[in-house]
Amino acid sequence: MANNAIVGQSGGPTSVINASLAGVFQACQMRGADHVYGMLHGIQGLLDEKVCDLGQRLSSFIDIELLKRTPSSFLGSCRYKLPDFKDHEDVYEKLFKILEKLEIRWFFYIGGNDSMDTINKLSQYGKQIGSPIRFMGVPKTIDNDLMLTDHTPGYGSAAKYIGVVMKEIIRDATVYGTNFVTIVEVMGRNAGWLTAAAALARGEDCEGVDLICLPEIPFHTDRFLEKVEKMQKERASVVIAVSEGVKLPDGRFVCELSDDARTVDAFGHINLNGTARYLSNLVARNLPTRTRPVELSILQRCAGHVTSRTDITEAFQVGGAAAKAAFEGETAKMVALKRLSNDPYQCTTELVDIDRVANLEKKVPLDWINDTRTDMLPPFLAYARPLIQAELTPIYINGLTQHIVEE
Amino acid sequence: MANNAIVGQSGGPTSVINASLAGVFQACQMRGADHVYGMLHGIQGLLDEKVCDLGQRLSSFIDIELLKRTPSSFLGSCRYKLPDFKDHEDVYEKLFKILEKLEIRWFFYIGGNDSMDTINKLSQYGKQIGSPIRFMGVPKTIDNDLMLTDHTPGYGSAAKYIGVVMKEIIRDATVYGTNFVTIVEVMGRNAGWLTAAAALARGEDCEGVDLICLPEIPFHTDRFLEKVEKMQKERASVVIAVSEGVKLPDGRFVCELSDDARTVDAFGHINLNGTARYLSNLVARNLPTRTRPVELSILQRCAGHVTSRTDITEAFQVGGAAAKAAFEGETAKMVALKRLSNDPYQCTTELVDIDRVANLEKKVPLDWINDTRTDMLPPFLAYARPLIQAELTPIYINGLTQHIVEE
Repeated sequence: MANNAIVGQSGGPTSVINASLAGVFQACQMRGADHVYGMLHGIQGLLDEKVCDLGQRLSSFIDIELLKRTPSSFLGSCRYKLPDFKDHEDVYEKLFKILEKLEIRWFFYIGGNDSMDTINKLSQYGKQIGSPIRFMGVPKTIDNDLMLTDHTPGYGSAAKYIGVVMKEIIRDATVYGTNFVTIVEVMGRNAGWLTAAAALARGEDCEGVDLICLPEIPFHTDRFLEKVEKMQKERASVVIAVSEGVKLPDGRFVCELSDDARTVDAFGHINLNGTARYLSNLVARNLPTRTRPVELSILQRCAGHVTSRTDITEAFQVGGAAAKAAFEGETAKMVALKRLSNDPYQCTTELVDIDRVANLEKKVPLDWINDTRTDMLPPFLAYARPLIQAELTPIYINGLTQHIVEE
Repeated sequence: MANNAIVGQSGGPTSVINASLAGVFQACQMRGADHVYGMLHGIQGLLDEKVCDLGQRLSSFIDIELLKRTPSSFLGSCRYKLPDFKDHEDVYEKLFKILEKLEIRWFFYIGGNDSMDTINKLSQYGKQIGSPIRFMGVPKTIDNDLMLTDHTPGYGSAAKYIGVVMKEIIRDATVYGTNFVTIVEVMGRNAGWLTAAAALARGEDCEGVDLICLPEIPFHTDRFLEKVEKMQKERASVVIAVSEGVKLPDGRFVCELSDDARTVDAFGHINLNGTARYLSNLVARNLPTRTRPVELSILQRCAGHVTSRTDITEAFQVGGAAAKAAFEGETAKMVALKRLSNDPYQCTTELVDIDRVANLEKKVPLDWINDTRTDMLPPFLAYARPLIQAELTPIYINGLTQHIVEE
């Protein structure tokens, strides 16, 4: 019987999820796995037996280097949530039969909350049926909202991207010297980690954003307008970073106030973005100023051309640590990052029980936000600044960043 | 009497307009100008006598290097259009009195169409009153719509940015393998140069965008839906680049069809963006697919972290050429770029009469667009590809790109 490993990617793409894939792949190979398979489109693809042999696709060092610089999920992703095995044992029977056929001994899943739930369920079911397969979770999310890990791979690069483009947006917004309010919408439904990263822009060459609105703080439109009016008396150009997830005191998303929010697609999904656009229109109607909404949109999660080398290195490292632990017999665990110190920044990996991570959300501590709820305090900057340090230079060919070729 | 030069920046910001400022400044200094002044917020600031002494602000080589890497207009900009001097001679009298007080011999204005109109008017008035001041235009616009120059500084970097992020957006959009239509809105009211740059994304590692909609081609919403439906039968993920300026056959902007377009700000300006959002909603209502609008917004003009070294070099070069010409006695001219060959790419500068440039617009040649009006043809790629070559590495300090410090 062969000793094979399998790895999948799930949830939203990031700039560094492929570095974790590289880490799992290389560590499994070095530890002697016969084959390292990749699930195409995660667990959903696996259920259709869509897998590839990663050893064939990643056959050279330049493949690995390009993979680290390729954003989004190289293997494809899915949003499939495994049902409870008490209700749908058939799904589990099918999955384990496929894993048996592929002679899998080690199973890795790279993702966020939902992916850790998948690892939790698979390892519980595996234990119940006495399966020898080892299940390990590898954390990934730009949202930085996983529990029990100091931070998540993907956050550092997204935070760096936000810092870089905020500086550029602030430069652009001040150019005419006339009244202007720029409202920048940042991802993060319930946790404000990414929006908070806008605070990193401030420095000797940049006065920084003027207001930061996190989803952790209830949003009052009247107070918002008052703040903007007051700020614009001090400076003509006001730049605001607002989370797409800011909510009214009654719990509704601010973007639900927009007419546009009522657009429904063919599946009945309500369009929930447009927070910046709504607020921009609100300010334009109420104050004597021009306004502009800017949505960072998916660029903040797929900007492979601006990544943090610290983040890429850690993403690779958690992948390797997951393989090491699984080969040493661990199962039902997630690799977490544990910070040892801020200055100098030192971080190591540790294992945490998967059932303590799955389906929970870590929010920005309220005591890292100032009293007037407009800005981040030094503890946040001390936390976030090390995560954006250093660069992994993109490989430019013929004028554009080069990625790994897809099959 | 001193021999002084003055330089101003006008119109929308670009990533490389400061490289042209550096070119003008260094060439004027080397040729012996006593002072090189900068107008703060262009001609409008000059009317208020708001100027700075650039020699004091740019005192070291590192200042010049940071200036080249700083997006937006270092001196600030304006949208002020000089009135006709037959109607408002007082404005001209005031301006020339200020220039006389500053002992200006050479006057440079970096900008697009409107800025060349300013140079045209000033040089005409100067000639009429027998002023010895030399007036030179330095081209700048991401829109690439100036006549008589092969291309404009600013376009290459914006085109490169669009190529880079399109590749990333395409990777992100394909990740789930399910039906998805991503509509990316690109700047350009009347000329489609920037939207056409989305065609650069295609390569061995990227299948490219599926549809390109330029403002040069009348837009039919029904045919658009037909095309999208047909494309999605061939591939689940469809990525479309659409100009903010696409117009219906009756001449209205497509975005005017949106409810949102009727938002009016306190000055009575109608909000004219939202083309991608409108089309995205249209597709979602009519086809069985999820959709997502992405606006590249101001990032495409201020992304100093992705610039073309070719573009930066040429931006610097046109600034220097303008100074050289003015010092040699030329006036009422714009420096143009003249392409000598595509492969190898060779380009030089020449002088063109300012009155032949001002207020005209250069559009994308229709024979560079394919018959079905969905994609660009090889002549466009041969034209645009050289302009995005090579990089000017950003200077990252403490995790973020560093810019020159403003006063």
